[in-house]
Amino acid sequence: MLIHPDRLFPVEPAARDVARRLYEQVRDLPIISPHGHTDPRWFAKDEPFPDPATLFVIPDHYIFRMLYSQGVRLEELGIPAKDGSPGERDPRAIWRRFASHYHLFRGTPTRLWLDHTFSTLFGFTERLSAANADAYYDRIDAALRTPEFRPRALFERFRIEAIATTESPLDPLAHHEAIRQSGWKGRVVTAYRPDPVVDPEFEGFRQNLARFGEITGHDTSTWSGYLDAHRTRRAFFRRYGATSTDHGHPTARTADLSQADAEALFRRVSTGDATPEDAEMFRAQMLTEMAAMSVEDGMVMQLHPGSFRNHNDALYRRFGRDMGADIPLQTDYVRALKPLLDRFGNEPNFTFILFTLDETSYSRELAPLAGHYPALKLGPAWWFFDAPEGMRRFRELTTETAGFYNTVGFNDDTRAYLSIPARHDVARRVDCAYLANLVTTHRLDEDEAHEVAYDLAYRLAKEAYKL
Amino acid sequence: MLIHPDRLFPVEPAARDVARRLYEQVRDLPIISPHGHTDPRWFAKDEPFPDPATLFVIPDHYIFRMLYSQGVRLEELGIPAKDGSPGERDPRAIWRRFASHYHLFRGTPTRLWLDHTFSTLFGFTERLSAANADAYYDRIDAALRTPEFRPRALFERFRIEAIATTESPLDPLAHHEAIRQSGWKGRVVTAYRPDPVVDPEFEGFRQNLARFGEITGHDTSTWSGYLDAHRTRRAFFRRYGATSTDHGHPTARTADLSQADAEALFRRVSTGDATPEDAEMFRAQMLTEMAAMSVEDGMVMQLHPGSFRNHNDALYRRFGRDMGADIPLQTDYVRALKPLLDRFGNEPNFTFILFTLDETSYSRELAPLAGHYPALKLGPAWWFFDAPEGMRRFRELTTETAGFYNTVGFNDDTRAYLSIPARHDVARRVDCAYLANLVTTHRLDEDEAHEVAYDLAYRLAKEAYKL
Amino acid sequence: MLIHPDRLFPVEPAARDVARRLYEQVRDLPIISPHGHTDPRWFAKDEPFPDPATLFVIPDHYIFRMLYSQGVRLEELGIPAKDGSPGERDPRAIWRRFASHYHLFRGTPTRLWLDHTFSTLFGFTERLSAANADAYYDRIDAALRTPEFRPRALFERFRIEAIATTESPLDPLAHHEAIRQSGWKGRVVTAYRPDPVVDPEFEGFRQNLARFGEITGHDTSTWSGYLDAHRTRRAFFRRYGATSTDHGHPTARTADLSQADAEALFRRVSTGDATPEDAEMFRAQMLTEMAAMSVEDGMVMQLHPGSFRNHNDALYRRFGRDMGADIPLQTDYVRALKPLLDRFGNEPNFTFILFTLDETSYSRELAPLAGHYPALKLGPAWWFFDAPEGMRRFRELTTETAGFYNTVGFNDDTRAYLSIPARHDVARRVDCAYLANLVTTHRLDEDEAHEVAYDLAYRLAKEAYKL
Repeated sequence: MLIHPDRLFPVEPAARDVARRLYEQVRDLPIISPHGHTDPRWFAKDEPFPDPATLFVIPDHYIFRMLYSQGVRLEELGIPAKDGSPGERDPRAIWRRFASHYHLFRGTPTRLWLDHTFSTLFGFTERLSAANADAYYDRIDAALRTPEFRPRALFERFRIEAIATTESPLDPLAHHEAIRQSGWKGRVVTAYRPDPVVDPEFEGFRQNLARFGEITGHDTSTWSGYLDAHRTRRAFFRRYGATSTDHGHPTARTADLSQADAEALFRRVSTGDATPEDAEMFRAQMLTEMAAMSVEDGMVMQLHPGSFRNHNDALYRRFGRDMGADIPLQTDYVRALKPLLDRFGNEPNFTFILFTLDETSYSRELAPLAGHYPALKLGPAWWFFDAPEGMRRFRELTTETAGFYNTVGFNDDTRAYLSIPARHDVARRVDCAYLANLVTTHRLDEDEAHEVAYDLAYRLAKEAYKL
Repeated sequence: MLIHPDRLFPVEPAARDVARRLYEQVRDLPIISPHGHTDPRWFAKDEPFPDPATLFVIPDHYIFRMLYSQGVRLEELGIPAKDGSPGERDPRAIWRRFASHYHLFRGTPTRLWLDHTFSTLFGFTERLSAANADAYYDRIDAALRTPEFRPRALFERFRIEAIATTESPLDPLAHHEAIRQSGWKGRVVTAYRPDPVVDPEFEGFRQNLARFGEITGHDTSTWSGYLDAHRTRRAFFRRYGATSTDHGHPTARTADLSQADAEALFRRVSTGDATPEDAEMFRAQMLTEMAAMSVEDGMVMQLHPGSFRNHNDALYRRFGRDMGADIPLQTDYVRALKPLLDRFGNEPNFTFILFTLDETSYSRELAPLAGHYPALKLGPAWWFFDAPEGMRRFRELTTETAGFYNTVGFNDDTRAYLSIPARHDVARRVDCAYLANLVTTHRLDEDEAHEVAYDLAYRLAKEAYKL
Repeated sequence: MLIHPDRLFPVEPAARDVARRLYEQVRDLPIISPHGHTDPRWFAKDEPFPDPATLFVIPDHYIFRMLYSQGVRLEELGIPAKDGSPGERDPRAIWRRFASHYHLFRGTPTRLWLDHTFSTLFGFTERLSAANADAYYDRIDAALRTPEFRPRALFERFRIEAIATTESPLDPLAHHEAIRQSGWKGRVVTAYRPDPVVDPEFEGFRQNLARFGEITGHDTSTWSGYLDAHRTRRAFFRRYGATSTDHGHPTARTADLSQADAEALFRRVSTGDATPEDAEMFRAQMLTEMAAMSVEDGMVMQLHPGSFRNHNDALYRRFGRDMGADIPLQTDYVRALKPLLDRFGNEPNFTFILFTLDETSYSRELAPLAGHYPALKLGPAWWFFDAPEGMRRFRELTTETAGFYNTVGFNDDTRAYLSIPARHDVARRVDCAYLANLVTTHRLDEDEAHEVAYDLAYRLAKEAYKL
């Protein structure tokens, strides 16, 4: 059997029993997925996924980075280079390479969700290996051609109550419009991710600004017109269900410049005269501006800071972004967030959700901040920490200071559609295991633990994100 | 039942049995409380505590910050504003608000000590909730009017062998004098906390210096007179039992300036011409000066660095200090302490106890430093980490490098008088659980574990603080 | 009994059983010791070790720093001062002092390996104490005079398949030559540790450069001659089995200067005109140069950064280096390594093994880097973290991102020859315990765990270091 019914529960029998009881009540709750990167085209077109390699391997940098780290070239895995030079084109050959390296994933969350998916969706009972690679390929390939494996059918099978995709302000949201036109009832909403028009170091920033003006009808060559363009576009996104914005900055720095200074800074970054410090300051100021707009329009604000993007220069030049070379950086929150919190930290109607790639900030900075400011909430363990040990540390390091109710449940944050049930299942299991430990060490009563398990699995995400 | 006899012990039966045996030997040991913030007035006057809300909620920023973080305004909890504007005045209404939010404390140490107190002092068996808020209020309120709940009676009931309060050099120690005059035998000693006359950024620093001169009869407008004032005042504090000093600085920075540079720096900070860097350097220099005096007079020196005080500006302006908005900062010890350690780190008669709000320093910096320098000892898990998971991490992260005997037992560090037995009980249980784990994984023999449990619960604090 | 057959295994019976089964298969595997500090003279001369104090106490700063931290002076432990002033000369008196402080090591890895050694090599069944100090001394002293306790006999008894010592480029490798001449079959290889000729702040750096030129026949007053001297000396070291280089820098900084800038920098550092920033930049550049040579000659490169050496100034002046006062510093890898990784991170034939004294970098920086770059591998938990809790954290914090196969098994990194079997045994036990936890929480199948246990205990070190 690929997956065990007691996986991730405590080993000690008394604690395992509590975990089982807690999990039993939350295992079948609908999925709220308030932050992720699924492609709205899937839900708009409802076309079959092409083949196992194209579904599982080629688009997933968690998978191919591990093979790359052990000497498999990206070309051998069918990753398209920017210059169009040919890599492996045979999906079955790619799949075999992946299968023959499956041992590399031992002990990783990738392994957990793959086994879950192979077992629950495709009925496999034997671990993937070089020996059974073809049998795996054939069965998955055949299944993908059936109606049950179309995106909308999976959406319903996964019991997704609501899912958010993430789009740039420059995106026309045509797929979201098509979903609405189609009459399909699945709740797929967008989220406003303005990095391309907020980060002066984003590729094509100046052209993006011009396009932003065309789309919104505002004069984005002026500071006030630029801000109005955001207001207009945020309203447009809300028409497609958006309840949140998301911001992926290298640091958590915020600023609160005077009107004149902000205008002068905007002039420099929009005309290309910006220094790196200008760029950083502009991103900082824009976080505060986005917060101001959230106070006005009620959109929940998310900050995902602290990644050094595209660290591998040669790979970036050959293959572009998202090649598995985004590396976390030490991240300060206490000084960085103060300008924004000084203005909006006490706002009763503002929700500002913080994520981190620097675990040292959980207990030192994030839990104390979230345990105090009414506007602040902690997002779940993110990215490299979205795994059983990482999730456990998140609870151990934040709960004693911030409690459970300054956190917001789980985000799967994934592009890997088929992994969504597995990821939520892991989160529910890890939280139940953590709660079972509190119960069996007599820090929490079991009736309360049931309530908390429900809140962490369902209610907190739904309420924090207004879904 | 609100508290379970096996709480915080390992779940695995064999380890739990060892923990029970270890705990059995230390559970009833007297309490040594060498560092805390109880009010000496309580012991001097021995008056009844007014009512449940005034005792538990209004003065405790651990409690009200959690409600504040979830949208309850401080006015609703009776927290007095600086301008005297009226907040909630009905203690029963405050108590009801607290009770109806009791679920927010799930998984927190506040919940642990409150349940302990409600159970052991007031006999409650049912968890506090909105439904039983009035019943709780009435029973506690009635108890507080009885002689058994006067401060001195509780002192004896709590089996406190010695407790240290914390006072400014400007404090006349009148309550401590009154305690001595009263003939009551409870051992309440003061501790010397000179921040108001050492930190140039403390409110009223220059007036404080003047007052410091008046009190001590030294000319505090000169560097040498200022240092003499400290010597005189330290001696005065020792008359009221003080065996220690305490220093609450934003960083752990120390300095060892030449006489001339120190004089010039003192001139700048005492006349108000100081830059922020001057202020930081003066605090740094004063740590080394305080160490020099400790080498002379034998007072144990404590450093509590790394808190960004009053982070919430609006709240600070409206309500003042200690509103739950002190946030930890990343803290360096290795470079920061070198000037002081170069002078006094090898002194056999000097005890310098370090605390941290930055857990990353436990294994990286503090344990290696304390495992080497004769003068250095590690204070216990502090503030946000003074909780079961935090205490466990403290042991796991320091013991392998510094052992047990470069640590100093437990400090409750609290203003919440009724929480003291619960806090020491938690520390004893967590240490016994840690030791039980060492015993059952055969890293320590049980006879040794008994000795260590006693040392951690009682002997080390008594000896390190010379109490 | 001093050591228990189940030590360090999980307490829960089901998990303990799995750990036992895993351990059973790896306990007797040969020892690969690819990085350490044993003295090649031992193997060349094969003379008896002198006495218990000289073997265990005097050369081991892990042991004497702990006694020093509790007020025992180094003179009392026979540590020789630089000025030749006499300390304790009676080894039995030193041993008694050590024995009477044995309780200080409770909970430390030093205690674990000492008990292992006392039990397995000398047959003790009673814990060392002041009471049995003489009996211990006599039995060990007598054993050391027997042929079974000569270095080569122990080598075979320890089942060492290969061990690397560490030498400076200025070392003539005479002992290694003597080992080869002797016909003894034990595999003792050297490793190239060029700090004395790479670090401008190393004692005698300029004289070292001159000597480096004499030894190699290159003109080390020029940049190209200096680089050639390294090439020549690396080849010489390879003749004595060296497969690796090792670099002990204060930071992980690397650089990739132009030829002209590198030449100018070399001129400044080699003529004594270097600033501290020059020294740091030169070390940084030299890491990249060493990587370039490794790409050419296939030597595995190791980086051990982040120690503030000789932090205790008075002790350093009196006793010299390695007195237990090396303290870890916070260490950045992401920005620091980029210049080197930009050049060689994607090289298929380059192995670059990273160590850290800053545990915060495990999950935030090192695992993401090693889980991506083909050249990078993670060295095991190092120095203060080379202990059960530290090793457990290493796995918990790196496996979910980097897996097992971007790590390189265990290094004992020790000067304490008799501790080697105990250290490898601890590592094997901790890894088996970790794997047993994955198995019993159903994250890994037991057949896979057996394979991983073997890889971690033997294969990965052998392959990564090409031994």
